[in-house]
Amino acid sequence: MKNFKNDEIGKMEKFYRMNLINSLIGFRALNLLGTANDDGVSNLCIISSTFHLGANPPLIGLVMRPQREHNDTLKNILSSGQYTLNNILPDLYKQAHQTSASYPSGDSEFKECGFEELYIDGFKAPFVQEANVRIGLELRKTIDVDLNGTTIVIGKIMYILTEDGLIGNDGMIDHYKAGTITAAGLDSYYTIDPLGRLAYAKPYVAPHEI
Amino acid sequence: MKNFKNDEIGKMEKFYRMNLINSLIGFRALNLLGTANDDGVSNLCIISSTFHLGANPPLIGLVMRPQREHNDTLKNILSSGQYTLNNILPDLYKQAHQTSASYPSGDSEFKECGFEELYIDGFKAPFVQEANVRIGLELRKTIDVDLNGTTIVIGKIMYILTEDGLIGNDGMIDHYKAGTITAAGLDSYYTIDPLGRLAYAKPYVAPHEI
Repeated sequence: MKNFKNDEIGKMEKFYRMNLINSLIGFRALNLLGTANDDGVSNLCIISSTFHLGANPPLIGLVMRPQREHNDTLKNILSSGQYTLNNILPDLYKQAHQTSASYPSGDSEFKECGFEELYIDGFKAPFVQEANVRIGLELRKTIDVDLNGTTIVIGKIMYILTEDGLIGNDGMIDHYKAGTITAAGLDSYYTIDPLGRLAYAKPYVAPHEI
Repeated sequence: MKNFKNDEIGKMEKFYRMNLINSLIGFRALNLLGTANDDGVSNLCIISSTFHLGANPPLIGLVMRPQREHNDTLKNILSSGQYTLNNILPDLYKQAHQTSASYPSGDSEFKECGFEELYIDGFKAPFVQEANVRIGLELRKTIDVDLNGTTIVIGKIMYILTEDGLIGNDGMIDHYKAGTITAAGLDSYYTIDPLGRLAYAKPYVAPHEI
């Protein structure tokens, strides 16, 4: 067994530690985060730190890092109060990864990386045309995390735009059918295969598929 | 295209909304969260709301829901200041799902769901023997989210325990080799297949595999 203690983690070479810590929790929700500034200039960045916060009210959280390309994104979210999350399909994973490059402000990753902006009435932030599960969010809260200078951004789901046939009768989105991909660490991408869907768990009742 | 606006989301049948909102962001990091109370009674619950917060210091966040079985977990984390996250392998996904059942306090999900506790010197929270990527965390901060009564728990990584051969020369954990599974929504589990690993993205340079 390979064991690391905290003091060893602190002494690791920077990129080794980044790869190790980033990959620890496993596969992560992977989305393209779309915003626009006050002049309507769009911005797009790949993000794997979104998390489900609650269904009623419908809330999603995500982490913005300090001193990085994401700062334009955070500025746009704070200024416009709106942003979108869009799933990523296998054919587009290289372009999606490319949105993590540090393009200068004013240079839209939509254009540079080959994505088309999709707008709907009453919402200023751009969705990704090439996605098939798209979420429009309104900012509800930001939390500054003093431990490392990151910002947790919490938004309320205002719009859901999916292609036909992806939502089951019970509301569940079929991400396998959609083709949604996932990621681990900073740079590794994966497709998925269904293993099983299980009934609501009750104490002392054996788990079973539905 | 299937579109929902916020007012329609608010009017949805409860379980339809839960399934839809829980499945929106895609595949999620899936772990078993291990704790123990002051008497050493262990607790284990499946969790899919962990998120990477930063590599230096090494921090992981997760969301605890109000008024649910997770409350024992949160009590234990607050009381002991320690907890573990452990990956889930395909053969064990039904048992892992079963840990979401509302067992009474004092009834350990390790025993009820068929997992073995693994302890190391100097750390009170139990790891999962059957996992092969295990993280020991110390509580650093809790954030009460007044929007919905959830609690964001932030911990510092104190221990990493993996089986041999799962960490690459660059620090990246090979979750495909490990067999780590992922989940979408409340109850659907998936295995994964590698799509590609990409070089660090630079502006105006085409993305390429490494």
